[in-house]
Amino acid sequence: MQTYIFPQRSAWPSILQRPSIDHESLETTVDTILRDVKLNGDNAIKKYAALFDGVAVENTLVDETEFAEAKSSVNEELKNAINLAKENITLFHERQQTQPEMIETMPGVFCWRKNVAIEKVGLYIPGGSAPLFSTLLMLGIPARIAGSREIIVCTPSDKNGKINPVILYVADLLGLKKVYKIGGVQAIGAMAYGTETVPQVSKIFGPGNQYVTCAKQLINKQGVAIDMPAGPSEVAVYADETAHPAFVAADLLSQAEHGADSQVLLVAKTEAFIEVVKQAIYSQLQNLERKNIAEKALQNSSFIVMKDTNEAFGLLNEYAPEHLIIASDDAEALAGLVVNAGSVFIGHYSPESVGDYASGTNHTLPTNSFAKAYSGVSLDSFVKKITFQQLTKEGLVNIGTAVEQMATAEGLQAHKEAVSIRLNEILKK
Amino acid sequence: MQTYIFPQRSAWPSILQRPSIDHESLETTVDTILRDVKLNGDNAIKKYAALFDGVAVENTLVDETEFAEAKSSVNEELKNAINLAKENITLFHERQQTQPEMIETMPGVFCWRKNVAIEKVGLYIPGGSAPLFSTLLMLGIPARIAGSREIIVCTPSDKNGKINPVILYVADLLGLKKVYKIGGVQAIGAMAYGTETVPQVSKIFGPGNQYVTCAKQLINKQGVAIDMPAGPSEVAVYADETAHPAFVAADLLSQAEHGADSQVLLVAKTEAFIEVVKQAIYSQLQNLERKNIAEKALQNSSFIVMKDTNEAFGLLNEYAPEHLIIASDDAEALAGLVVNAGSVFIGHYSPESVGDYASGTNHTLPTNSFAKAYSGVSLDSFVKKITFQQLTKEGLVNIGTAVEQMATAEGLQAHKEAVSIRLNEILKK
Repeated sequence: MQTYIFPQRSAWPSILQRPSIDHESLETTVDTILRDVKLNGDNAIKKYAALFDGVAVENTLVDETEFAEAKSSVNEELKNAINLAKENITLFHERQQTQPEMIETMPGVFCWRKNVAIEKVGLYIPGGSAPLFSTLLMLGIPARIAGSREIIVCTPSDKNGKINPVILYVADLLGLKKVYKIGGVQAIGAMAYGTETVPQVSKIFGPGNQYVTCAKQLINKQGVAIDMPAGPSEVAVYADETAHPAFVAADLLSQAEHGADSQVLLVAKTEAFIEVVKQAIYSQLQNLERKNIAEKALQNSSFIVMKDTNEAFGLLNEYAPEHLIIASDDAEALAGLVVNAGSVFIGHYSPESVGDYASGTNHTLPTNSFAKAYSGVSLDSFVKKITFQQLTKEGLVNIGTAVEQMATAEGLQAHKEAVSIRLNEILKK
Repeated sequence: MQTYIFPQRSAWPSILQRPSIDHESLETTVDTILRDVKLNGDNAIKKYAALFDGVAVENTLVDETEFAEAKSSVNEELKNAINLAKENITLFHERQQTQPEMIETMPGVFCWRKNVAIEKVGLYIPGGSAPLFSTLLMLGIPARIAGSREIIVCTPSDKNGKINPVILYVADLLGLKKVYKIGGVQAIGAMAYGTETVPQVSKIFGPGNQYVTCAKQLINKQGVAIDMPAGPSEVAVYADETAHPAFVAADLLSQAEHGADSQVLLVAKTEAFIEVVKQAIYSQLQNLERKNIAEKALQNSSFIVMKDTNEAFGLLNEYAPEHLIIASDDAEALAGLVVNAGSVFIGHYSPESVGDYASGTNHTLPTNSFAKAYSGVSLDSFVKKITFQQLTKEGLVNIGTAVEQMATAEGLQAHKEAVSIRLNEILKK
């Protein structure tokens, strides 16, 4: 935990540096597994499940009995909570649908775009310490709204060949019937190349450890689309004198508990405020089950005092946080200063947790400063926007000469001729 | 040129196979150049310009005199044509702007998305046999509409250190003043890492040869966004008995002249029609300046007879062409069958050329079957969609319990506490 007081702009890059991630050293291992899955399909998958996870799964596809068992084992309170989240996420993502709008760019020249679902998508849900059923909601709901024809889910089983029941419950709730007990690099390979049992997909979504991330990068380079590049989760909080230090501390801890590599950043107006937040952090930390993880994450974290508000947001935009919480009575106006962020939480009663689970926005967001160029997952992530155009004869006459001129100037005569041959036919008549 | 009559579905994958592209063999070379540019900046750029292009450029940044010279050397007819194209492209891309829409997903929970321009973007315009000023229109116009603060253009100079005047004219017309005489891998490296003279950008757009493509892949893996993966340009034409064989031949040739690695595909209802088109191709080919290139491209090309219309579009969707021309009186209805394509040209008077230059749609499109998961460049490509949320106290009370339940079920206690600490404060009062 490092505190910086009024840092000079020249010092920002070093202050804002993320813990570096070295995927290259993993590449050889990951590449070997991917090639094996491509070549040997299901056999390779079984081999690595045994080797890495000590699991022997005969049928990787989850069956109806397992779905039914899962459904009966989830308590009603959690089902209600999941249902509320589902409603909000559905509403927010349904409103992202757009209808084609035909534009007559000049008389007789009609152009439009139409959103068409990506036909086959794969969703990866990690296993491990936290069963991320919320991620399945965040990916499965927009996939269903978009209308993807084939939605594959891969998630690793435990040592007994079981998948977390809440994950299965959510899959069933969303009508996702193709859930495979496959994890890690081999899951990414299975979806990228297809195997005897797992269908090949065109785009792969979902978080994962550094091996999964590396695998997604490699298959992306081979032409399979991915949601976005991934890095450890992170939050930045801007807090002024109107902020509640205990709330700020709770928000920072809720990020820090994600993993030892998570990063939290607090930008405040005074050193005194930062000290109060630090005390609140230590006090709240004592009661956390994931105390050790949070403590490690806090070691990577920075507390920065900034005098000028515009400069503070300049620094935050330079950092481009995955999550940005604006803890201020003036938060609504300050939100207008945000240029680079994945998702922004405005005011004292909008903790990141609500967006992580249930408010409706997506929690799959760009980390590692990728928010400078990438958006979080949305309905857009599951569709292609295909352009269409239709010209009348009049339209081609209106635009034809310009196209002939430009094609000629680019030295592409056949491009010109494709217009000329039509103009000759039209004007001859 | 290969003709297939009523191919079985099992034969489709081999018929639709693209010429394979092997970027991996280039990777070592490209990686070396990128590392050198990252380490040595402008000096490395000069070194490679001399080595690969035999050019010694002292000042890579184009100056006002060069813009003025270019402007005076472009003839008025071409200027008018470019202006018409600019108007149409501007209109089509301006209409892609969206305003934030606030959605109250449940009482007191407000969520919305806001489009914010990517601040720094780089546009690569190849040199070589065809000066692609049209690509500068297609990338520069949406970048300007989005409002990117810094727009960098890199394009190689000729042996005399000059850039094609039409490219400079278009840059000037669009108000793009940062044009650098840098080409190839070193241009991608310069924009990805920044040098003493070239600013670093967050996203790189534009076509290029296989070295440039490989460089874009590598910097993408390092976290710099790119427009899309690239492959050779391609067109598929669907033509029924109402199509004009001479028009179809002209459209196929306009694609074939792009490069020896371009691919064209014709799907027709009868073998007789295909024969007539082939004759028209041979006849039109004789007069083309780029005859040799087009002939080579035609060697990679397939002519397929399909009986059933739905099956024909099944095959076309499986191919997922960059450009799809539907040459039929019934084209409008048939366009509804398109699931995978970059851009679709409907009817007898909508040649691909109009979309390549001037109708308004973007010509930077997904090739190599990437249209299954990727869209062409649009205004979306130059913005991030940032999500925002703001909860009232009432909103947090309404959603809080659900979030607490879900966080607890995922084993993320600090996520729960960030809500609980606020609920305690609200409900105490």
